[in-house]
Amino acid sequence: MTDTHVTNRPLTLLGLGDMGTALARTWLAAGHPLTVWNRTAAKADALAAEGAAVAASPAEAVAANTLVVLCLLDDASVGAALDGVDLTGKDLVNLTTGTPAEGRARAAWAEARGARFLDSGIMATPGMIGVPEAGGYVFHSGSRALFDAHRATLEVPAGARFVGEDPGHAALHDVALLSAMYGLFAGVSHAYALIEGEDVAPSSLAPLLSEWLGAMGFFVGNAAERLASRDFTTGVVSNLAMQVAGSGTLLRASADQGVSAELIGPYLDLMRERLEADPVAHAGEDTTGAITLLRRG
Amino acid sequence: MTDTHVTNRPLTLLGLGDMGTALARTWLAAGHPLTVWNRTAAKADALAAEGAAVAASPAEAVAANTLVVLCLLDDASVGAALDGVDLTGKDLVNLTTGTPAEGRARAAWAEARGARFLDSGIMATPGMIGVPEAGGYVFHSGSRALFDAHRATLEVPAGARFVGEDPGHAALHDVALLSAMYGLFAGVSHAYALIEGEDVAPSSLAPLLSEWLGAMGFFVGNAAERLASRDFTTGVVSNLAMQVAGSGTLLRASADQGVSAELIGPYLDLMRERLEADPVAHAGEDTTGAITLLRRG
Ligand SMILES: NC(=O)c1ccc[n+]([C@@H]2O[C@H](COP(=O)([O-])OP(=O)(O)OC[C@H]3O[C@@H](n4cnc5c(N)ncnc54)[C@H](OP(=O)(O)O)[C@@H]3O)[C@@H](O)[C@H]2O)c1
Ligand SMILES: NC(=O)c1ccc[n+]([C@@H]2O[C@H](COP(=O)([O-])OP(=O)(O)OC[C@H]3O[C@@H](n4cnc5c(N)ncnc54)[C@H](OP(=O)(O)O)[C@@H]3O)[C@@H](O)[C@H]2O)c1
Repeated sequence: MTDTHVTNRPLTLLGLGDMGTALARTWLAAGHPLTVWNRTAAKADALAAEGAAVAASPAEAVAANTLVVLCLLDDASVGAALDGVDLTGKDLVNLTTGTPAEGRARAAWAEARGARFLDSGIMATPGMIGVPEAGGYVFHSGSRALFDAHRATLEVPAGARFVGEDPGHAALHDVALLSAMYGLFAGVSHAYALIEGEDVAPSSLAPLLSEWLGAMGFFVGNAAERLASRDFTTGVVSNLAMQVAGSGTLLRASADQGVSAELIGPYLDLMRERLEADPVAHAGEDTTGAITLLRRG
Repeated sequence: MTDTHVTNRPLTLLGLGDMGTALARTWLAAGHPLTVWNRTAAKADALAAEGAAVAASPAEAVAANTLVVLCLLDDASVGAALDGVDLTGKDLVNLTTGTPAEGRARAAWAEARGARFLDSGIMATPGMIGVPEAGGYVFHSGSRALFDAHRATLEVPAGARFVGEDPGHAALHDVALLSAMYGLFAGVSHAYALIEGEDVAPSSLAPLLSEWLGAMGFFVGNAAERLASRDFTTGVVSNLAMQVAGSGTLLRASADQGVSAELIGPYLDLMRERLEADPVAHAGEDTTGAITLLRRG
């Protein structure tokens, strides 16, 4: 390693909730001098016993080190904690979850105060922090120079992935992945609801679901290609007209089983809307063309 | 193999649409004497040239062989095609897509006419038929004796999986897997809609989505365990109260990006409904408890 001179670099962490506390422990365990601050001071006690320096105010905590990591509840709490604090020359890494717009606004706010800024999104739970085999990581976006300068330190709690100089892009990636996850959860939830009261054990459906969803994961790459080419028709294996026709079976079966269609109905409706917008043009597409209808929020 | 005496067993197939035609070709290629019938007779011409015997009516086709496979449009077309046909002593395998209730009713109908019956659901497209590496297969339910007697023949076009003596269970498995798939598609669609117009290429989001969804696939097994134990709380890594609070960020980010929440909103609403039904009891659950709310169709 050529960067041994940067190991054990000191840093400051604001926010000792579940996530902040988990992060703090990994930096202390790795030998980084760490200054912490939390609004409710008592949450710093255990970390003080483990070697952290405890600051009495955000200003004191920020003054202690160049690298300042924020892990607060939401964007408003970042503004509240750093109100009036001198950020000149600081490297701010904001691990607080927010929207892309909040990330951009917070970056402009930090830069106007003389700081470099990374907005970040944590793709991990506190239990996955400091556990590399758990596969957690953090999206970072904004100042590439800041990322490169502090990469080794940022990688201590979990993997670090830089996703662009636009400071909104870490949050954008974060919400994109969470959205996809909730869709997966919704579909699986509907599937389990269908078998409730039937002589089919959830544990016998589970491996079939996992195998099937793994195979259907082809949709992710397929949709990316079609969105880039705007060709939703070439090489389709299961066409939209047939899928719209088949959706009636899904809805009738759900109703027969006494299961609300609230989770899967909207997607079936979207497929139908795409088809009906131009049946001649869209009948031979797969379902990826329906994605283009969603920009109406 | 001890069952070489059953290879090349003759059979009848009713229905030569896209799927029926693909099935027929695999049985002919494997050397099974095959009798076919299709409402629109011309669709049998190519198969006749490939060696199929063409029957002039459903009754003639059914009379030709003990094993009779149906691959028609829907349950109504099965009733229409077999109306008045003598089914005594026949082994009927119904590959026509339907609901669990249709499968059960059709089984009772077939048994009353002296036939053994399997209701089945094809988890493959026509292009996957006869291509073992494509991983397609068919769920079968109903007469275990019929399945055991004809298993080798049924496995010619794609894998064959017996999922219970209740003739509704193949369709139940079919709709459960399709529902889960549409949920996955819905979530991924929302994710791609979020990055439209941003300087993030679908092809750069795709591998991150695939990796993340693979990791989140733990939900399938986790939900099965919790539904069996009715314990939605032990060992939770990401609690419902936090996820409900965080859903606001997802919705605001979607609105900021101009993306409709129609696909993911219903699941976020369901999480909130579960939490609000009893915040003390449910705050520490994961999201699997929400599944129990869906039985209200
Ligand atoms: N936990 C997870 O699984 C997870 C996963 C990914 C991302 N995240 C993100 O990580 C961040 C922290 O999460 P967490 O789990 O640690 O949350 P948490 O346990 O609720 O802690 C919230 C932290 O924010 C502080 N805070 C709240 N309002 C404040 C204000 N107005 N001024 C100053 N400090 C304020 C709290 O201080 P007090 O102690 O004084 O209340 C506490 O330190 C959030 O943005 C969350 O979305 C969490
Ligand atoms: N294609 C797939 O990807 C796929 C995947 C899984 C399951 N399946 C299921 O497989 C079955 C067949 O699908 P397919 O793709 O072959 O459909 P298709 O190409 O539309 O063919 C439909 C077949 O049903 C016949 N039919 C329709 N109404 C009839 C009636 N009243 N009486 C007699 N015959 C009638 C048609 O005869 P004519 O030729 O005279 O119209 C044709 O043979 C369906 O239940 C479908 O859900 C298909």
